[in-house]
Amino acid sequence: MLGTVVATLTGLTVRDRKSWRVGLYGYNGCLVGVALPTFLEMSPLVWGCIVLGSIISVVSTLCIADILKTWKVAALTAPFVFTTWIILLSSYAFSSLHNGGLPHPSFPHQFIVETNSTENRHYVFDSLFNGISQIFLFSSLIGGILFLIGLAIESLWAAIFAVCGSFLAILTATFLMANYDSIHLGLYSFSAVLTAIALGSTFNNPSWRVLAYTLIGVIFTVIVQGALDTLLSPLGIPTLTMPFVLASWLFLVPNKEIMPAHRQ
Amino acid sequence: MLGTVVATLTGLTVRDRKSWRVGLYGYNGCLVGVALPTFLEMSPLVWGCIVLGSIISVVSTLCIADILKTWKVAALTAPFVFTTWIILLSSYAFSSLHNGGLPHPSFPHQFIVETNSTENRHYVFDSLFNGISQIFLFSSLIGGILFLIGLAIESLWAAIFAVCGSFLAILTATFLMANYDSIHLGLYSFSAVLTAIALGSTFNNPSWRVLAYTLIGVIFTVIVQGALDTLLSPLGIPTLTMPFVLASWLFLVPNKEIMPAHRQ
Amino acid sequence: MLGTVVATLTGLTVRDRKSWRVGLYGYNGCLVGVALPTFLEMSPLVWGCIVLGSIISVVSTLCIADILKTWKVAALTAPFVFTTWIILLSSYAFSSLHNGGLPHPSFPHQFIVETNSTENRHYVFDSLFNGISQIFLFSSLIGGILFLIGLAIESLWAAIFAVCGSFLAILTATFLMANYDSIHLGLYSFSAVLTAIALGSTFNNPSWRVLAYTLIGVIFTVIVQGALDTLLSPLGIPTLTMPFVLASWLFLVPNKEIMPAHRQ
Repeated sequence: MLGTVVATLTGLTVRDRKSWRVGLYGYNGCLVGVALPTFLEMSPLVWGCIVLGSIISVVSTLCIADILKTWKVAALTAPFVFTTWIILLSSYAFSSLHNGGLPHPSFPHQFIVETNSTENRHYVFDSLFNGISQIFLFSSLIGGILFLIGLAIESLWAAIFAVCGSFLAILTATFLMANYDSIHLGLYSFSAVLTAIALGSTFNNPSWRVLAYTLIGVIFTVIVQGALDTLLSPLGIPTLTMPFVLASWLFLVPNKEIMPAHRQ
Repeated sequence: MLGTVVATLTGLTVRDRKSWRVGLYGYNGCLVGVALPTFLEMSPLVWGCIVLGSIISVVSTLCIADILKTWKVAALTAPFVFTTWIILLSSYAFSSLHNGGLPHPSFPHQFIVETNSTENRHYVFDSLFNGISQIFLFSSLIGGILFLIGLAIESLWAAIFAVCGSFLAILTATFLMANYDSIHLGLYSFSAVLTAIALGSTFNNPSWRVLAYTLIGVIFTVIVQGALDTLLSPLGIPTLTMPFVLASWLFLVPNKEIMPAHRQ
Repeated sequence: MLGTVVATLTGLTVRDRKSWRVGLYGYNGCLVGVALPTFLEMSPLVWGCIVLGSIISVVSTLCIADILKTWKVAALTAPFVFTTWIILLSSYAFSSLHNGGLPHPSFPHQFIVETNSTENRHYVFDSLFNGISQIFLFSSLIGGILFLIGLAIESLWAAIFAVCGSFLAILTATFLMANYDSIHLGLYSFSAVLTAIALGSTFNNPSWRVLAYTLIGVIFTVIVQGALDTLLSPLGIPTLTMPFVLASWLFLVPNKEIMPAHRQ
């Protein structure tokens, strides 16, 4: 927990020293700083990886933003995802990086429900906010509420979309009978929360048409989450926020054609 | 069989209700409607997936077409392939989607011929039309002939290229000693048929130079088919028409440079 | 050894007959001709694959160059990597192509050092030049020195960057405790050598700022090498020069923004 906070500061410091547009380049480095200590056992070398990862995340933000400029789409958290994936994948090859926190590589296999679904409704309030705190890779009711308050101060619409997105994602995943523990920990909703905010409030002015569009986007994000979990299972790395990035890119690229009037 | 037809109609209905350019956006939704019941056990939820998949296939057609516009290439069946892959991959994570029809995930291993090749020539006529019907994910002599007649009415050249493409693909796969049963079922030729039509007749006016170009394209499609079978074997999903999409993109992007005179 | 030389000549001959800009299109075909006999057991069919692979490498050079033109980046050795990957992957499906030289497909697992690191310094001189000769897929002190002399005649800066890149890569990989045998054979340095040449001398005029940029690029290439080794382990194919291609693209796309003054 402390490590996460310090890592975040390090990530930000590295950006600050560079004196570049911090707001835009900083958050990917910050997320790298949060993610690496979650999956790798802490050591001085992991600190080095965070510093290097922050620099690489800035370079890849520039690179991905330059590529996506062609289609007028933002890089979102893709630089964070690619940088972290590369470092986590490489940890298998380097014996000085201990990846105890990574899932064990295995073939995908059909998930079959074992628990009874009656215990479901008890925790839906917790699950709702776990999904929001899971964006920063931990499950916490308080953390989720704090993040939501911060978001509401910035934009009330964004906060409303975040809660509704989290709820809709839990509903979809439960309906499709995904692993109940994963749903409760917010593993099916954190990407959906980001998609809901991105499609619903950041990039478009809210309206009924945007609402329907966001609804489909959130449901699709849950399916992409399941698909990426399967895709990455033989590699033993987590999806991070890639489902959000893929679903948002898919819905934002043709956005200009479908709803030009509501585009900001 | 009946399910396939009904699914196709559903796929088309969804498009119709949207009242968008049906011809262009419809066929990817239609293919999603054919593919999902082939690999997933039918249930009301799979119907829901077909409806959602059709909507997603329209959004991804818009998205992919917008991206490829930069290089003046068509989306082909890529929206169908990506949409279906995502739903099939996600079926592993959701216990309400039973993926009994999917191949079992396994490591790639060198294929070694066991059957003797003398029984080969007996079925080459069947294999030829299986390759054409396999585009719609089933092996049938009658189905292949019916599809070919439909194609011939539209364009005689396309039908000729389809038959020649299927024959050349069977020849190449047999020469490279692929699994004989797979060849007979048309699994090495359905993508090659589409490549032959796309490179030979749809996008370019037929000529000797186009013919040589198409010949290489068809042989390459068979190799890409083998490569994608290997690539996807740890994930337990089928290649669908991706070999056709990859080979056609590869040969169409530099097309303007190699043969500008024959370009329509 | 002899086969490699003859294959190289074949690769070049195919290009010559086409009478196209040999210098630009030839080297990818040449590398395909070197790579295939390294991983596949020689047979007349492999010769056919080399000829087909050379043609495909020219088409994919045109295709990739056309795509990357949008962001003003070169295709580098990407056409060689993709063409060879496809043929090697397909060799699993075709029993007439024996892929005895390919690594066995397996799940990624954390590498743990067994040897003691004291024997390290004895061979660092050998390792240095193995990394350079490994670009052409073999480990040889003499081969590395000969290649370096050839490079020095063309450009002294390029040769200096090659040696420094190889040394820095060995240092980084040793520091991260990668498999010592792999380091000694140059498997962690051949891509780093190419990155050092590309970032340091070919695309930019050398300066202190370029030097720092190249330094990070080389260290990152070693990490990408480890990541791609993990990524490809379930598929049983080698990384080839993909780490170089990925790292160089990442650093070259935003290059115009970071250092426009030094850009040639």
